[in-house]
Parts: sequence; C-alpha cells; structure tokens
Amino acid sequence: MDAEQLRENAHKMVDFIADYYKNIETFPVLSQVEPGYLQKLLPDSAPMQPESLQAVLQEVESAILPGVTHWQSPDYFAYFPSNSSVAGFLGEMLSAGINMVGFSWITSPAATELEMIVLDWLANLLNLPQHFLSKGPGGGAIQGTASEALLVVLLASRDKVLRQVGKDALRRLVVYGSDQTHSSLQKACQIAGVHPENLRLLRTERCNEYALSPESLTDAISHDVASGLIPLFLCATVGTTSSTAVDPLLALGKITKRYGIWFHVDAAYAGSACICPEYRHHLNGIEEADSFNMNCHKWFLTNFDCSALWIKDRNALIQSLSTNPEYLKNKASQGSTVIDYKDWQIPLGRRFRSLKLWMVLRLYGVENLQSYIRNHIKLAQHFEHLVAQDSRFEIVATRTFSLVCFRLLPSNKTEEYVNKLNHDLLDAVNSSGKIFISHTVLSGKYILRFVVGAPLTEERHVIAAWKLFQEAASSLLENS
Amino acid sequence: MDAEQLRENAHKMVDFIADYYKNIETFPVLSQVEPGYLQKLLPDSAPMQPESLQAVLQEVESAILPGVTHWQSPDYFAYFPSNSSVAGFLGEMLSAGINMVGFSWITSPAATELEMIVLDWLANLLNLPQHFLSKGPGGGAIQGTASEALLVVLLASRDKVLRQVGKDALRRLVVYGSDQTHSSLQKACQIAGVHPENLRLLRTERCNEYALSPESLTDAISHDVASGLIPLFLCATVGTTSSTAVDPLLALGKITKRYGIWFHVDAAYAGSACICPEYRHHLNGIEEADSFNMNCHKWFLTNFDCSALWIKDRNALIQSLSTNPEYLKNKASQGSTVIDYKDWQIPLGRRFRSLKLWMVLRLYGVENLQSYIRNHIKLAQHFEHLVAQDSRFEIVATRTFSLVCFRLLPSNKTEEYVNKLNHDLLDAVNSSGKIFISHTVLSGKYILRFVVGAPLTEERHVIAAWKLFQEAASSLLENS
Repeated sequence: MDAEQLRENAHKMVDFIADYYKNIETFPVLSQVEPGYLQKLLPDSAPMQPESLQAVLQEVESAILPGVTHWQSPDYFAYFPSNSSVAGFLGEMLSAGINMVGFSWITSPAATELEMIVLDWLANLLNLPQHFLSKGPGGGAIQGTASEALLVVLLASRDKVLRQVGKDALRRLVVYGSDQTHSSLQKACQIAGVHPENLRLLRTERCNEYALSPESLTDAISHDVASGLIPLFLCATVGTTSSTAVDPLLALGKITKRYGIWFHVDAAYAGSACICPEYRHHLNGIEEADSFNMNCHKWFLTNFDCSALWIKDRNALIQSLSTNPEYLKNKASQGSTVIDYKDWQIPLGRRFRSLKLWMVLRLYGVENLQSYIRNHIKLAQHFEHLVAQDSRFEIVATRTFSLVCFRLLPSNKTEEYVNKLNHDLLDAVNSSGKIFISHTVLSGKYILRFVVGAPLTEERHVIAAWKLFQEAASSLLENS
Repeated sequence: MDAEQLRENAHKMVDFIADYYKNIETFPVLSQVEPGYLQKLLPDSAPMQPESLQAVLQEVESAILPGVTHWQSPDYFAYFPSNSSVAGFLGEMLSAGINMVGFSWITSPAATELEMIVLDWLANLLNLPQHFLSKGPGGGAIQGTASEALLVVLLASRDKVLRQVGKDALRRLVVYGSDQTHSSLQKACQIAGVHPENLRLLRTERCNEYALSPESLTDAISHDVASGLIPLFLCATVGTTSSTAVDPLLALGKITKRYGIWFHVDAAYAGSACICPEYRHHLNGIEEADSFNMNCHKWFLTNFDCSALWIKDRNALIQSLSTNPEYLKNKASQGSTVIDYKDWQIPLGRRFRSLKLWMVLRLYGVENLQSYIRNHIKLAQHFEHLVAQDSRFEIVATRTFSLVCFRLLPSNKTEEYVNKLNHDLLDAVNSSGKIFISHTVLSGKYILRFVVGAPLTEERHVIAAWKLFQEAASSLLENS
C-alpha cells in the first residue's frame, strides 16, 4: 500500500468505472451467459507472479462484465432497485480507503458517532417517533441487509420473552406475518429456532390489496393463546415485495400492544418514499412499533449495503447480542458512556457505512432526494397509464409507489394458459437483453413486476420498455 | 449517477485518499477524542440543499479524521490487522461501481462463479483437502466475518442433528471450544439457541501453550454423553486471539469423528500464514474438518470485509438457510445447475466481494503474498528479540506468527500490582498517539499484545515502538 501507487492505479480505475457507466446501455441488462461459463475463461490457479492492472482490467471486460447483470442500467426494472450514485460511490471509496473495523467505539469513534447522527437525521426526515432517536433508550444502527435487521430484532424479542418464561418455552413462541411478508422472516425464524409450525403467514386477499387484515391477526392470536402458545413477534410491511402492499400499521400495532407482542415494521423498499410528505401517511402508526427498518441501498442512492434499523429499546438488542471478551475491553466501553455497535448486530466487525449515507444526504440534499423519488413514481405512473391503454393487458394490483404489477390477459383462456403466456413473455423480454424484469404470483396468477428505480432511468427507457412488451406480446399471441 | 460527474468527483476522492495515506503517520494512531465529540461538530439535521464535495471533504478532515483510529497506520499493532492494499482498494472500487446484489446466480453469474473460482484457488494455495473444492459436494463462500462463518456452520450442524433427533432436543445439544476460542462462538450459540450451560469452553494451560487438549475434550464429551446430552460441534482454532495458540487439529478431529461431532476450524488470522509451506503444518489435520474459515480481510491484503469459508457438505448449509420465495424463482435456480449463495449465508443480498480477492491474488501473485507474510513474521521476531534483551520485561507466550505477548515484570511485586502496571503501560503508549496496541489476560496475567500486520509497517516502526515501551516503562517504574 503505497500512496503514489494507489493514486496512479485508482485514477485508472476511476476512468474504467466512469467508462462503464458511459457505456452501460450497450450491455445486455440480464447477463446471457450459461452456467459454468467463467471456469472456461480463467486459469485453474492463482498466478505466482504479479500481473498488471491493465491485464486485469482487460479480463474484467472480456470475462467478468459479460457475466454481470447490470443493476445500474437504466433498463433494469427487476426485483427492487439497488441504487448506486456518485455520492454513494464516493462514500464507499472513502470507507474502503480508511478501512477501519468499527466494532467498538474506540476502534474509530467517528464511525460510531457519525452513524448515530445520520440515523437521527434520517429518522427525523421520516418523522419517526422520538423513541427511535439516539438520545433516548433507543436508537438506530446500520445493518447489512433487511434480513439481518429482522433477525436481530427477532432475537431480541425471543430472548426478552425467554428470560421471563424460561428457555424451554422456545417451542411455544409464535411469529406472525402475512403471506406477502418477505421470505427473510421465515429465514430469521429458522435461524432463531422458532418452530416452523409456529410461523403464521396469514392469508391476504386481493380485496384488501394484499395487506394483512387486523381481524385475521386477532383471530390467529386468540387461537394461539387458547392453545397455550405465546405470541411473540409481528412483522408488518410497508411496501411488500410482490405488490408493494401496505399493512395497516396503526390497527396492527394496537393489537400487538394488547398482547405484548414485539412489533417490527419492514419498509425496506418503500421507506425511502416516506421522506416525501405526500407518502408519509403510509407510516402512520409507526409510533406503535418496537423496531423499524428501511434499506438505504435500495431506493435512496446509497450503494449496497446499508440497511437502517431503528429500535425503541436498544437494551433488548444488546442483552441478546453482546459478548464481552477480555481482549476487547477498554475504558470507554467499560465506562458505558459509548455505544459499541458490535452488540447491535450479528458480526463483530463492521465497515464505516455511515460515510456513504452521510455523503448522499449532504451532496444531494433533502429536496433533491424527494424529487428523485417523485420522478420514479411519475415514471411508474406513466408506465401504468401505457399498460392501461392496451386492452390486451391487465393491471393486477393498485400501484402505490414505483412498482407496476400487470399481465397479458387474452380473453377466454384458462388461468394455466395465461400463466404460461406471461411466463413466456417474461422470458422473451429478458432474453432480449434489452430490459430485465422479474415476476411474482398473486392469488394464483403469474404476474410481471415492473419497478422503476434505477438512477439512470428516464422516460424514454420506460417508453422503450413498454414497446418491447407490446411487440413481444403480439408475437406470442400470433404464435399461439 | 452521471458518468462524467462520477469521473470528476472520484478523481478528487482518489487524491484525497492517496494524500491520507501519504500523511497517515502524522495522525495519532488511536483516536484521542472524547465520547460525543462529533455531535458538537455536526448540524442537527440533513441539509435541504446540496453541498459541495469540497465542503464535505473539508469536514472529513476537520471532524471525521480526528475521530478515526487509523488501522492502516504503520504504527498500528492492536487486535489483529485489517489490511488495506492497492489491489484490495481497487477491488472495492470496482465492486461499488458495478454495485450489483448477487443473491442468486442469475443476478450476476460472474459474481457467483468468480467466488467459486478464487476460493478454489485459495483452497489450493492452503493445500486444503479436495472435499472443500467447488467441484465436489462441498465448496467455498465469502462471508462478511468469521462470526458469520461460524454461525452458519453451527446452524448447519444444529439442524442436521435436530432433523435426526427432533427439534425438542435443542436443549440437549452441546458445543465445545476452549477458553481461548473467540467470543463469536458464544455469540453464535446465543443466536442459535444453544443453551448457555451447554457451551463448554474447556480450560487451557500455559504448559500446553494455551492449546485445547484432546484429553480434556474427550473427558468433557464422555461426561456429556453419560448425562444424556448430545455432543454437536467443536470449534478449534489455528491462531487464537489472545496468543495465537494452535489447537491440535488432527487429534481433535479424530475425537469428533468418533462421536459424530461437526468439526469447525477457525483460522481467521493465522490462515493467511499457511500459504507459506513452512507454516502449513499448523493446518495438519484439516482433512478431518467439516468446515474451515480464514479472514482475507485480516492479513491477506483484502479490504474488509472478506471472510473465506469452506464446507465439506454444502447441502447441510443449504438445508439450514434456504428459502425459495416465488419472486426469486428463475430457470437457472430451478434447474439446480447453479449455486445461489443466498442459501449459504445469513443475509439475502451480497456484494461482489470476490473481485477484491481476485485482484489481490492477481496483482500481487502468490510469491509476493508469501514474502509479505514472512516479512511481518520477521518483524515480530525482531520485536520479540528486543523485548527478550530487556530484563525488565517477560515474553509470556511463545510467538508462533506475528503476535508477541509480553509484559513488564518488576521483581518482588504482587500479581495485582504487575497487572495494574501493565494496564498503565498500555494506557501510556496508546494515549501518546504514537502507536496502538491491545491487551489480553492469560492465566490471570494482564498481557500486552503487539501484532505486526499493517501493510505499511517497516523495521523502523517496530524499533520506534519498542523504544516507546522502554521509555514509558522507565517512567512508570520511576514514579512507582
């Protein structure tokens, strides 16, 4: 690590990456390689002697980039977005440059304190309740992903209850969500040892826009209590993965209060939209929550990974996740005047991730971030409008944010036929390399998901994408 | 995200970071700020309007860097190292530039396949058994940290046994390690729901160099079996945190085989040294292990985080950690011709971390990496030699790699006094800002840990550090 070598080579890398963005529209969005392609291109062992950066960058171009699915392409509309931005990228660079490991306050006080400050800033932007701010008994921490955020609060709730009723009650703990809750809830339960038969993924209905109904929650809880089980945890979602459904937080929160259930709110994708006053109402009821999560790495211009978690009672988390080995003891930690984030998360080590979020907030400013969100939602509205005008297609769920759920729906065909047709339509557009979208299934219907959220996406990309759907649909319908 | 804006600003950031490395010796190694310092320097809320990169970088200099503990300083000798390098940094840049989320093969085939390939390369460098290679039923995956690596294999072992004996046997599962095993084992047990009274941290002795004795393991297992408990998991360590002790893998492994216990080997720090043939013998017996882990982000020039985990039977991991929601289904995954690393780890999303490891291997080459390790060990030997020459000091544990454990030992003083004296010595050198070291306690003795491992450390830094110890010791002894 020589400063001048770093300077020289990193300047070359900057140009390589800037050129990548300049040419990003020339790549197939979804990589078109076959499984095992890379093994054929690379040697079987690491080189004994050093190679040049030029040789490596040439191989990135010839061997790696063909195998990349370009999440930053303006024609990327799959899953949920994973934003890169100039500010987010610069923050990553700085974090990698400093390369410290911030498990305890002392290992870099700035890392812990900047994280507390920017999560307070973001909590205020989202108008979160005061009990999530760092000055009280709660606070925020950056987790790698929403899966980790959900796991750590599930563990905190599990251990809080088991301390009261004894460890052997694990088998009686019940966790609630809906059939639209992200699969990370199931995974967190697997890890935490919650018995699979005690995970209630309550059925949602189209008539409720696939939101969790408070009645079904009450029914399930009452039934479980009557059976001698212990209701532990509810995960509600603001913006579900399949259709961006919004669970009714206030009503659900009241129920959890009545039964002493930990109430977690997952707004991994849609949380970002709630910095705009006109979307904030989707978080109404958040004051009932014990914990709340949104992914800044999805739709908030902060490079992956950066998942913001707030918790009302940080002690619950710390009691669950702390260890205190001799070799990590230090005056600041022993004095309890500081936060050691190692006790808020699964891993011990952690990167300086608050830098990138801080840089996004400062280099863009709140008003630009709001415009950014509004622009994507406007583009999604435009796409929705285009779909609605073509009578061969159906909009399947109400668009709330920047996801449009739709399908091709020829008349007088079986559901099975229609599902197959839409599956083929997805394959057709994705294998063209021109766009990348993903799918879901709602009420037995195979549905195409079109999410606007890549920073480079403009109206022309949305219009071109729609034309591609129309053409592929025409071709499929003609051939069938 | 505009390519030209990225180019312009990222070039500025390169210069900022290169200058940071140029001046890194001018900072106090251990940050000298007081808790809460940053809150006083930063505003209470995020700005509404954008600010300039220049303003942000000025604040990094004035507010952030004083709160950074400089892990890349050549005068950093604390904990274990966390290497940054030109190649590792370039890999981080490229990964942040592409910014894809590689949970499934399809989301960027290159990310999955490059990871498989470089972990095969590294496994071969370490001469790991064939069953850890990707071509068989095992394979490697990059985890964030050794804590996560340990957790996922503990979960795999837990679920494998519980599938056989029933979920309610959780309370009967016993996990083994030594009193020198890293605290991440305790944390993993907490998370996995292993009962705390069933975690056996077997006592080690100085006469065994703090290595786990096979006899004490056999005794503990026999006792547990006789009590109707189920021996589940052993974590052995190559290079413990306190003193880099090496547990006898072969003998321990044979015992685990006899009882059907999952055998995990944690070589988070010392694994890197084993790419040198003269240190490889520390891994003898690794062929008995079910899983093995080393941290490329410690002493292998790969920026944090990058923890390599190999596993003999990947299905055990996948059965424990997989979920299969509709919205992530795709042809490649359904066809089972690919690996989806989401099922090998706690989070769903994952960064393109193999890029930086690949670049480290290619831009430095194996021979340079071996020289790098040997040079640090030579410097540690030199430091050990200096300590040994000063009769006021004692070397407390045999140096095996690049850690020297020592203490100031005036004659005719109580252990309590000596411990306090060494605590004061640590405070004195750390608060000087000139070096940063950490401590441990072994057999009741407070011990100073001096680890050589920062890429910029040269002989002159080690010599200057030793002078600082001598001066601080003289001053403490005079005043006492």
